[in-house]
Amino acid sequence: MTNYRLIITCPDALGIVAQVSQVIATQQGWIVEANHYSDHDTKKFFMRYEISGSDAPFNPDSFRSSFAPVADRFDMQWSLLDSQVRKKMIIMASKTSHCLADLLYRHHSGDLFCEIPCVISNHPDLEKIVQPYGIPYHVIKDFTEVEKLWEQYQPDCIALARFMQIIPDTLCDKYIGKVINIHHSFLPSFIGANPYHQAHTRGVKLIGATCHYVTQQLDEGPIIDQDVVRVSHKETREDMVRLGKDVEKTVLSRGLRYHLEDRVLIDKQKTIVFL
Amino acid sequence: MTNYRLIITCPDALGIVAQVSQVIATQQGWIVEANHYSDHDTKKFFMRYEISGSDAPFNPDSFRSSFAPVADRFDMQWSLLDSQVRKKMIIMASKTSHCLADLLYRHHSGDLFCEIPCVISNHPDLEKIVQPYGIPYHVIKDFTEVEKLWEQYQPDCIALARFMQIIPDTLCDKYIGKVINIHHSFLPSFIGANPYHQAHTRGVKLIGATCHYVTQQLDEGPIIDQDVVRVSHKETREDMVRLGKDVEKTVLSRGLRYHLEDRVLIDKQKTIVFL
Amino acid sequence: MTNYRLIITCPDALGIVAQVSQVIATQQGWIVEANHYSDHDTKKFFMRYEISGSDAPFNPDSFRSSFAPVADRFDMQWSLLDSQVRKKMIIMASKTSHCLADLLYRHHSGDLFCEIPCVISNHPDLEKIVQPYGIPYHVIKDFTEVEKLWEQYQPDCIALARFMQIIPDTLCDKYIGKVINIHHSFLPSFIGANPYHQAHTRGVKLIGATCHYVTQQLDEGPIIDQDVVRVSHKETREDMVRLGKDVEKTVLSRGLRYHLEDRVLIDKQKTIVFL
Amino acid sequence: MTNYRLIITCPDALGIVAQVSQVIATQQGWIVEANHYSDHDTKKFFMRYEISGSDAPFNPDSFRSSFAPVADRFDMQWSLLDSQVRKKMIIMASKTSHCLADLLYRHHSGDLFCEIPCVISNHPDLEKIVQPYGIPYHVIKDFTEVEKLWEQYQPDCIALARFMQIIPDTLCDKYIGKVINIHHSFLPSFIGANPYHQAHTRGVKLIGATCHYVTQQLDEGPIIDQDVVRVSHKETREDMVRLGKDVEKTVLSRGLRYHLEDRVLIDKQKTIVFL
Repeated sequence: MTNYRLIITCPDALGIVAQVSQVIATQQGWIVEANHYSDHDTKKFFMRYEISGSDAPFNPDSFRSSFAPVADRFDMQWSLLDSQVRKKMIIMASKTSHCLADLLYRHHSGDLFCEIPCVISNHPDLEKIVQPYGIPYHVIKDFTEVEKLWEQYQPDCIALARFMQIIPDTLCDKYIGKVINIHHSFLPSFIGANPYHQAHTRGVKLIGATCHYVTQQLDEGPIIDQDVVRVSHKETREDMVRLGKDVEKTVLSRGLRYHLEDRVLIDKQKTIVFL
Repeated sequence: MTNYRLIITCPDALGIVAQVSQVIATQQGWIVEANHYSDHDTKKFFMRYEISGSDAPFNPDSFRSSFAPVADRFDMQWSLLDSQVRKKMIIMASKTSHCLADLLYRHHSGDLFCEIPCVISNHPDLEKIVQPYGIPYHVIKDFTEVEKLWEQYQPDCIALARFMQIIPDTLCDKYIGKVINIHHSFLPSFIGANPYHQAHTRGVKLIGATCHYVTQQLDEGPIIDQDVVRVSHKETREDMVRLGKDVEKTVLSRGLRYHLEDRVLIDKQKTIVFL
Repeated sequence: MTNYRLIITCPDALGIVAQVSQVIATQQGWIVEANHYSDHDTKKFFMRYEISGSDAPFNPDSFRSSFAPVADRFDMQWSLLDSQVRKKMIIMASKTSHCLADLLYRHHSGDLFCEIPCVISNHPDLEKIVQPYGIPYHVIKDFTEVEKLWEQYQPDCIALARFMQIIPDTLCDKYIGKVINIHHSFLPSFIGANPYHQAHTRGVKLIGATCHYVTQQLDEGPIIDQDVVRVSHKETREDMVRLGKDVEKTVLSRGLRYHLEDRVLIDKQKTIVFL
Repeated sequence: MTNYRLIITCPDALGIVAQVSQVIATQQGWIVEANHYSDHDTKKFFMRYEISGSDAPFNPDSFRSSFAPVADRFDMQWSLLDSQVRKKMIIMASKTSHCLADLLYRHHSGDLFCEIPCVISNHPDLEKIVQPYGIPYHVIKDFTEVEKLWEQYQPDCIALARFMQIIPDTLCDKYIGKVINIHHSFLPSFIGANPYHQAHTRGVKLIGATCHYVTQQLDEGPIIDQDVVRVSHKETREDMVRLGKDVEKTVLSRGLRYHLEDRVLIDKQKTIVFL
């Protein structure tokens, strides 16, 4: 079954759905999943359609030509994506392996539909985790090397799997909407370093993790997903780190899955996640 | 702002969305929320649209006439509902008050958008809970009286708020899709009486509650919502009852809210809940 | 069955449990629930025992005399409380009723074991909620009146059930460890006013509530309990308020229950909650 | 720091804690974690103490001699375990790898404190998962071979990590309290094969997993832990399988951790889990 995803952002207006679905129907496309969202504050409209072309001769190029005038009329930013094409996802890691190992396993077992062309790290330590999967492991010294590798691989997504260096502003801008980080706290609580230490000192009863797009504002990019786990006075800082690792890897892989399936639309500091 | 809800069930086919949204646009309706679902097994299509007529002269009668031929073509079961019209919800209770008190308070504070024409009980005990809200309280002796009251009030929904009698088959059939029960276990575990007692004996680590439509098959009607709460060996049967009460009232009020907002479509033994 | 609670805080040392339990056994007390906690950082020891005197002639006065020398030796702060004695809990509220209504109902139905001598508010609006329960409702103009009422009623606990005024420092100090607030966010996120507005603007995917002791530092007192609920881009600020209300009342009543059962021990900015 | 765990089950009686803690104090043991439980129904008493010997010359053999008379007096089943000694855990798997891979990674990263002497499977497929960790992988043909291997390795724990064969009664009995299974449903719902298929057909809104000891009664052994994940009408059977896998591996590793830390005491069909 060949599926396509039609992603649209435009100013809200009357008749968008009618015109869009009219073109799809004319092109013999079958809408199998549909999501809309009208933002009351910004008067923007967001849309994601999954279109099946399996039972009918839906042709993406033909659709694109027919659709262009409609897109123009409503001033749309749009794309039609083939959901059978694997996106390229680079993983960045440092010395902590739980997120990396989780992503590699999920990819290997078919749970995460993408291609992983390489893993990049500022340390050699995690190569042995990557090696059995036959994926290149690049140890880099600085962000000049990182930039080169990103240019070379042309990734659709860069997963910061507990990568402990701050991405320079120029790279943030160049790859905006593609770099996804896992922050080991429930943002906006405990911004910055050592969040579990801060959480322990403050005596919170839940600790969390936040998956978000990377922007120049550290830990303030649009949030894709978050989750928490319950703790009590009994948990030491080490226990919090251990419990936190499970939340981190769950939230990161979930956020990446949404991104890879084109379910996340960014609107300035916020996301629309179509589930 | 006047809103309408268009609810559709029909055999799946190409072009449904296009034709439906075409009529809506022609009638100057603005789609503010949209949900579709295609069931792969049954080849059925389910749809719920929230249509705003606030900024445009959408006329429901005019829509209905224009839409009828489309509905015929696709063999649709459909309805257009005015979301400003309060549905009538009768509450049935026995001696346990937590669900009743929760529903009355939510209704009173505006969280539950409906009219409560009366409360019906097989015991006089809970009248004092109902009295401050100025809602009639009927103590009934048998289901002949129940049937009369239901006929008299013409409810859109009947909430069994821990009503401890089994609804006769004839009433189940007559009010199918309108009677909603809260079962105090995570169905299908612990069907029947004393589920917390069963749960304690079995030593489960989570107890739950299930909100479902009532059918002739006791505790087997289509499930609307479920939730659980964690327990341990420390909890006595009494603790389980206490903890369970919070889950019960949460799940019941959530399920009723979905029903009152026409978010629940029934497909034989299952529900589609459009959130 | 008559139960007692023995609560102890002291510097950690070898043999505490042995000496404490020795006195209990000698006094024919039966330990039915036991909790210890040694804080590695502060080298403090915390303890809570539930002692049953039902099957044996345990005498609290006799216990107190026998226990005093042990308490001295280990430099203990301690108390023996009769769990059959209802604590006095004053509820403070403003115009929002969900927490107040929830606490009154739980008290009425026996879920919250305490006496509620009065409700105090800076607005007359909620009197009609309180009136059916036959509890005095005091409308106050300033904190001089509040202080007088607190002095008059001698409360063991003061529940700020969405009371929208800041307690003056002198009252905070005088009733330290007795005043419990519900903050409508997952602290330390969104300190201060309008947390749901802040959460909506930030685009978080979970919103929460925090039950904490009130200290001079606004929203920074020791946390007793927290919980969260999932939200998405679909939820408006109004939806967040509605969803938040359920979390707030759940967390507040849970925190109060722990306090009323003497399960919460305070250690500077943190709590030990023995469950 | 050398720690010991004292685990006791005996008929409930007055003075147990006093006598036990007296011996510990005399032996210079420092109680760092304490849990008691008195079962009201069975009049049994359960106890788990973590004793630190780090700051004092606690000697386990000396303790055992001193403690024996106390244990006799109260008719105790008891053991003193050195928490620094790694338990031996055999993993049994078939063709599904997610639980196996998760356990191997957790063990490797230090999250699961035990020794894994071998993995046993009825299929050769998963050897490549195990091989990088340098752990022997035995492919067996029948339970005669399984029994031999179990006898050879003398495991303290056998983890059925989605092992798809039924353990014969004789082995169940011989290794009672040591064999731990993950069942991919929220027991007692959906006992037996294909629980996700059953869950999908029934239209439940939560699916779960249950970690339990294996007994002769299939899927009815004492439950150690359970958890659930929310699903809706959108989830296909395949989605449920994918979502379920995350719950399964979380619940299995949590249950095994409790067992390896001697936190689980079995009382007929139920467990006491001291956390």
